[in-house]
Amino acid sequence: MSKTIYILNGPNLNLLGKRQPEIYGHDTLDDVARNCAAVAAEFGLETDLRQSNHEGEIIDWIHEAREKAAAIVINPAAYTHTSVAILDALNTFEGPVIEVHISQVHKREPFRHHSYVSHRSDAVMAGFGIGGYALAVRHLGLTLGG
Amino acid sequence: MSKTIYILNGPNLNLLGKRQPEIYGHDTLDDVARNCAAVAAEFGLETDLRQSNHEGEIIDWIHEAREKAAAIVINPAAYTHTSVAILDALNTFEGPVIEVHISQVHKREPFRHHSYVSHRSDAVMAGFGIGGYALAVRHLGLTLGG
Amino acid sequence: MSKTIYILNGPNLNLLGKRQPEIYGHDTLDDVARNCAAVAAEFGLETDLRQSNHEGEIIDWIHEAREKAAAIVINPAAYTHTSVAILDALNTFEGPVIEVHISQVHKREPFRHHSYVSHRSDAVMAGFGIGGYALAVRHLGLTLGG
Amino acid sequence: MSKTIYILNGPNLNLLGKRQPEIYGHDTLDDVARNCAAVAAEFGLETDLRQSNHEGEIIDWIHEAREKAAAIVINPAAYTHTSVAILDALNTFEGPVIEVHISQVHKREPFRHHSYVSHRSDAVMAGFGIGGYALAVRHLGLTLGG
Amino acid sequence: MSKTIYILNGPNLNLLGKRQPEIYGHDTLDDVARNCAAVAAEFGLETDLRQSNHEGEIIDWIHEAREKAAAIVINPAAYTHTSVAILDALNTFEGPVIEVHISQVHKREPFRHHSYVSHRSDAVMAGFGIGGYALAVRHLGLTLGG
Amino acid sequence: MSKTIYILNGPNLNLLGKRQPEIYGHDTLDDVARNCAAVAAEFGLETDLRQSNHEGEIIDWIHEAREKAAAIVINPAAYTHTSVAILDALNTFEGPVIEVHISQVHKREPFRHHSYVSHRSDAVMAGFGIGGYALAVRHLGLTLGG
Amino acid sequence: MSKTIYILNGPNLNLLGKRQPEIYGHDTLDDVARNCAAVAAEFGLETDLRQSNHEGEIIDWIHEAREKAAAIVINPAAYTHTSVAILDALNTFEGPVIEVHISQVHKREPFRHHSYVSHRSDAVMAGFGIGGYALAVRHLGLTLGG
Amino acid sequence: MSKTIYILNGPNLNLLGKRQPEIYGHDTLDDVARNCAAVAAEFGLETDLRQSNHEGEIIDWIHEAREKAAAIVINPAAYTHTSVAILDALNTFEGPVIEVHISQVHKREPFRHHSYVSHRSDAVMAGFGIGGYALAVRHLGLTLGG
Amino acid sequence: MSKTIYILNGPNLNLLGKRQPEIYGHDTLDDVARNCAAVAAEFGLETDLRQSNHEGEIIDWIHEAREKAAAIVINPAAYTHTSVAILDALNTFEGPVIEVHISQVHKREPFRHHSYVSHRSDAVMAGFGIGGYALAVRHLGLTLGG
Amino acid sequence: MSKTIYILNGPNLNLLGKRQPEIYGHDTLDDVARNCAAVAAEFGLETDLRQSNHEGEIIDWIHEAREKAAAIVINPAAYTHTSVAILDALNTFEGPVIEVHISQVHKREPFRHHSYVSHRSDAVMAGFGIGGYALAVRHLGLTLGG
Amino acid sequence: MSKTIYILNGPNLNLLGKRQPEIYGHDTLDDVARNCAAVAAEFGLETDLRQSNHEGEIIDWIHEAREKAAAIVINPAAYTHTSVAILDALNTFEGPVIEVHISQVHKREPFRHHSYVSHRSDAVMAGFGIGGYALAVRHLGLTLGG
Amino acid sequence: MSKTIYILNGPNLNLLGKRQPEIYGHDTLDDVARNCAAVAAEFGLETDLRQSNHEGEIIDWIHEAREKAAAIVINPAAYTHTSVAILDALNTFEGPVIEVHISQVHKREPFRHHSYVSHRSDAVMAGFGIGGYALAVRHLGLTLGG
Repeated sequence: MSKTIYILNGPNLNLLGKRQPEIYGHDTLDDVARNCAAVAAEFGLETDLRQSNHEGEIIDWIHEAREKAAAIVINPAAYTHTSVAILDALNTFEGPVIEVHISQVHKREPFRHHSYVSHRSDAVMAGFGIGGYALAVRHLGLTLGG
Repeated sequence: MSKTIYILNGPNLNLLGKRQPEIYGHDTLDDVARNCAAVAAEFGLETDLRQSNHEGEIIDWIHEAREKAAAIVINPAAYTHTSVAILDALNTFEGPVIEVHISQVHKREPFRHHSYVSHRSDAVMAGFGIGGYALAVRHLGLTLGG
Repeated sequence: MSKTIYILNGPNLNLLGKRQPEIYGHDTLDDVARNCAAVAAEFGLETDLRQSNHEGEIIDWIHEAREKAAAIVINPAAYTHTSVAILDALNTFEGPVIEVHISQVHKREPFRHHSYVSHRSDAVMAGFGIGGYALAVRHLGLTLGG
Repeated sequence: MSKTIYILNGPNLNLLGKRQPEIYGHDTLDDVARNCAAVAAEFGLETDLRQSNHEGEIIDWIHEAREKAAAIVINPAAYTHTSVAILDALNTFEGPVIEVHISQVHKREPFRHHSYVSHRSDAVMAGFGIGGYALAVRHLGLTLGG
Repeated sequence: MSKTIYILNGPNLNLLGKRQPEIYGHDTLDDVARNCAAVAAEFGLETDLRQSNHEGEIIDWIHEAREKAAAIVINPAAYTHTSVAILDALNTFEGPVIEVHISQVHKREPFRHHSYVSHRSDAVMAGFGIGGYALAVRHLGLTLGG
Repeated sequence: MSKTIYILNGPNLNLLGKRQPEIYGHDTLDDVARNCAAVAAEFGLETDLRQSNHEGEIIDWIHEAREKAAAIVINPAAYTHTSVAILDALNTFEGPVIEVHISQVHKREPFRHHSYVSHRSDAVMAGFGIGGYALAVRHLGLTLGG
Repeated sequence: MSKTIYILNGPNLNLLGKRQPEIYGHDTLDDVARNCAAVAAEFGLETDLRQSNHEGEIIDWIHEAREKAAAIVINPAAYTHTSVAILDALNTFEGPVIEVHISQVHKREPFRHHSYVSHRSDAVMAGFGIGGYALAVRHLGLTLGG
Repeated sequence: MSKTIYILNGPNLNLLGKRQPEIYGHDTLDDVARNCAAVAAEFGLETDLRQSNHEGEIIDWIHEAREKAAAIVINPAAYTHTSVAILDALNTFEGPVIEVHISQVHKREPFRHHSYVSHRSDAVMAGFGIGGYALAVRHLGLTLGG
Repeated sequence: MSKTIYILNGPNLNLLGKRQPEIYGHDTLDDVARNCAAVAAEFGLETDLRQSNHEGEIIDWIHEAREKAAAIVINPAAYTHTSVAILDALNTFEGPVIEVHISQVHKREPFRHHSYVSHRSDAVMAGFGIGGYALAVRHLGLTLGG
Repeated sequence: MSKTIYILNGPNLNLLGKRQPEIYGHDTLDDVARNCAAVAAEFGLETDLRQSNHEGEIIDWIHEAREKAAAIVINPAAYTHTSVAILDALNTFEGPVIEVHISQVHKREPFRHHSYVSHRSDAVMAGFGIGGYALAVRHLGLTLGG
Repeated sequence: MSKTIYILNGPNLNLLGKRQPEIYGHDTLDDVARNCAAVAAEFGLETDLRQSNHEGEIIDWIHEAREKAAAIVINPAAYTHTSVAILDALNTFEGPVIEVHISQVHKREPFRHHSYVSHRSDAVMAGFGIGGYALAVRHLGLTLGG
Repeated sequence: MSKTIYILNGPNLNLLGKRQPEIYGHDTLDDVARNCAAVAAEFGLETDLRQSNHEGEIIDWIHEAREKAAAIVINPAAYTHTSVAILDALNTFEGPVIEVHISQVHKREPFRHHSYVSHRSDAVMAGFGIGGYALAVRHLGLTLGG
């Protein structure tokens, strides 16, 4: 059985640490990848972090995860609020799905309060900064291991 | 004049027959292609079935259809509910457009009840399983032939 | 087991072919009956087409279908949008129910976009003109036969 | 060409003059019929006043009016707010349609503020008591005559 | 003064005990009639139970009740949610009106949560199964008698 | 007691007969004044027709009517939909108020379906063309006389 | 197994019979307790009637009922419309729950038309005055006994 | 400066592990307290876990936290959706506030999708089971320590 | 610096004391002016009370107040609910603005519950009768003086 | 007859002057009590100021006021927007009720724009800071005395 | 044919350059007039800039434009959002209508997002500061000239 | 500092001049590019016009613009109404953003009235045909130059 957690990131997250630091902080996706790998290793797991601005590419990766991943951690960014297609892709995945938002989306514009992905995700977190990714991996380590 | 019907399929339909069979059944897109070709042949027509997870690629194909297709049968899947861009692409196509949904979408989540594509499609069907595609082709055979 | 398909038609469809041909075409309910019977015969089935302007009479016929029909094809016309009673009657019927609309209702007034009957119907089609009835019968022929 | 105006009345109007006089007054439908006939006669027209509690029967009468009436004055009563079927029937009638409400419906419960029939009626009046019928006939006399 | 309670039942209730027993139970309208008559007799009252699938016929019976009934117990079934005409008919009745629903409608589809009849009914009950009718009659026995 | 009916007209009605004849016809406010005066004379009444594009001026005239008019016929035009101030002014008037719209407003844009003035008006009519004014005056003649 | 029915009453019901008698009547909670005990006794059951203005105390009592009560009759009064916490408490109770409202709440302000408690209650009644409590107990007697 | 984290729990959570295990699991609040204390100790912090069914008591504790706590972890349970008062209390607290929900609330009834507390909370998590509390404490350990 | 408080009154308030005394009482605007002047004098201030039925004139006065007034007390009457223009005018005024309504508007029609002016006003009061004006002036006396 | 005015304060107001001074200012409830007592004394009245974070306790005090208070001044704070129970308690009180908000609530979050208490309160004021309490007492002094 | 462009300005724009410069900038209407005249002259056109706080006066000017103007540039200011009467006046004008807003209204309060005038205007621009007027005139110069 | 203006075009605009000329006119994107370059040259600026049907590609270009462009003119076409991702990309760009729509979108279907992009764009224009692009460039020339 797979020991890999896919960590998928949606549009504009390639700029993490470079844009709007008052909302998203100064760390980059590389920092996220390092932190997550370290926590995963504590539990004998591995991580594979990817980012795309293309909705279709994220869907392709989720399909790939059906064969190769034990779990998905996903920060769909803007597609959280608009993509039924990503929701449907996640509906085809059988392992645990954790939805992560860096900022506390419920304190931002109203259109950021609704998540299509939450119709499928087993757990969701928002506002933990980039630390949220590592917490999600820890949770998977604790629950997948059993 | 073209004798080809484009049969365009939206995101996640590449998994048809492999995911959620209680909703979508066990047949694959290849089965759909075979069935449609057979019905089309009864009327001297051909079919060209494609699938993409990328909204932009579907738009490109619809533009291509402006030159090469007599009609479009489209199952926009999740993009049914979110894509004004596909609607606008179909608005540039002059032949008949038939919208097909495998499941009876009106019995599922409320956000699946609205279709942007229906603002343009000449006819729409839902809940006929993969048999719906062939019925759509038959309808085109009966009406295009005249 | 019954070999009859009930084809039930709601209010104003007695005028089919006589009113608003730009929406509903020139064919009459008699044409519909003939076409449906022909397709049904291909599959060893029979059809029984009826029309009423009275909501209560349509309910009575659906109750009758519980004993006598293998399937129901229904075009509830205006009652589509207002009749919970017809929905409840269909809920008492155990065979397949196909909902047919001659025009593409989703391109007409907003109050025609919602169907109470769709809460029950197994499949729904709109915009195929009177050809939709025969397609529905064909679908039943293909699936009931098995 | 027909010289008859159909004056159609919906549910509960058979009790006119007998129920809730603070809303509907003390005159009966017979009084209405007499008043309308008198005004019609001034213009060389005739009237045919009917009442039914059955939606289907009102639809039947509107269909009949397609052949026999020059105009329809209709007080759909409660069906004003719930009957798409009567609206569709009126859509098949080519002459003028005047919608009459005895009480000023816009001052009553909110669900009485919307009229499906108004999607079709050429003119609408409310709050003139039973006098409204005669005013409607007078208007038809003045405009049909030309 | 009348000693009769009209117990009026709306569409599809003729199938009570025969359809969807998980919602409506196994007892029939005949059982309801027997139970109600027994309770009424305790208070020197009589009952007259009727059922119709026709909105207009129910209205006619309510008009009849104006002369012949001391009270109305009504289960309008699907017409609960769609019939302003039955509401208006009940508005012409001066005695007590009790609205009964066999199932707990507030736990079902949202469109079953609103009742036009409740704009008029003096009391309403839902979810007591067919026992609700007899409780309604008992209440009338206790309050009419005084 | 006053024998005068104030006939008040809101914004843009000074162009009546000069603009959008497909909606409003070819007659002018002078024609309206003449017609109304003639009908009023049949009943021993007089009319005083005025028009203003200024909401405040219409309010002033309604205040004046408190002393000088037996009734008000008002076509508030665009202010129908936006003026609580005119509604409040009419609330200070004790005689009958009839609201007239030349076109059938319920068939036009949705924002023309709501009338603040209807919260006060005793009767309302729409779609009778300029003939509506005279019908309103006739109604007042018939009911004020008594 | 417990033979006790908890009869729980929400805020302001301690004033029953002392406030707004036009809505709530002249009987007090003591009268309710006496009536309910009498009916319960017919079925070999007991009742325990309590009232609190404190949401938390009502929750505590429902928790207590998990051990000590066979059923709950609850009139949540104002908390009907605002308390998800009481709903959640009732969700932890396994026996039957009957929701009682003294007045016919659907004829009062719109915010009284929605009940959080109805998401859980097996049956609901409104408008039977204080007699409703005893009817609820009778229903429990008839159905628990079996 | 305080080294204590207040862990506040709303209504019905005293039954954690005893009710609806399919939603909330089998662990109790005592288990939560133990887990949180252990994680806190890793960071030299302490925890103080409390539970109340009384909205006012939770407010009192938040006020107390203003003096005695470095941070608040709060699972407001049902009060999440209805209590502006708890939101206002949290608005008076200056340290970090983390909102924890055991179940994935966005997959439950719509009224559980909105949180008043989220207007204030710095971070929110849902669906991590009782493990979410410890993750929240870990996050505070990582960020308060700095 | 100016010592004058502008007291501006919207449409129909010229009839204060003359219309609908059950809502607005028997005092006139002259009484209001006298009371306000007396209270203002206690604090060494003056008042300038004006009324207009013309939205534009009220805007002109607010512009004038920019130069000549220390504060504005405004009862916009019906324009409260419809005038963005008065809101925008008040947005150009830098001193305190107090909004006064004679009746308790929140107990009247829903369209009177929203105030555009409240987007700007520093304080608002409703239901104090004409006494509200003097209370507003007293508040300004107490706070402007400092 | 009682000469006491109850001044009731809702949740979090015990922190008045200690929290969010930019919204609520620096004065405490003790200052409010002193100011109100001084104004009341001018009119021969007394005041009794209380505060509670418990909805139930506020209800208890309103019940007590039925016997002991001539009037109620209430700042329900957060319960303004969520408590039907306090509204119902106030509905049992026969004297005048004045609703006071320290801040101008209509300029804050939308959920603070609606007040259940305003369905009952005779007058309401917002944005006068703590001075609003004394103005309310003055108004009661002026109107109760008469 | 007329060579004049009417440039009409709504309420409070007489203060342009004097109020809220952070929203509207420091230039005045005189600057606007000069800029527009210069651009118009490039195309052999003239401009006539006017401003009024009175809705009725703006309507009068639009009526005047029917005879005297080749085009209208209008900044309706607050009336954008509330005036159906100005919309109706513009509907009587046959030449091009360009709607200009100085600020980017879609980033301001929600009630500024809807424009009645946009139901008629051929083009609309917002957020170009006072430069927008000159751009509008340039567009008219380029398109009227042809 | 960059002297280049990016002119980005969304889906289906590659067909400009080839589809629906009654809405979009006969000019192509090449014409737009030529016009914009000419105007830019007047101000010493350059333009770079691109078009894509792929949301992700447009996001990539906006990211590129962060380094290479002085300003962005964007016609997001259908993505205007559905793409939070493009909005978020624009939020990372620090220079001016002008949103251009060829048609007057506010006169088309309601779903075209809302723009996510307008949450960020500094200015927006609609209905100027392809001339709008050049006007936008001129505005940037006038304001960037300074």
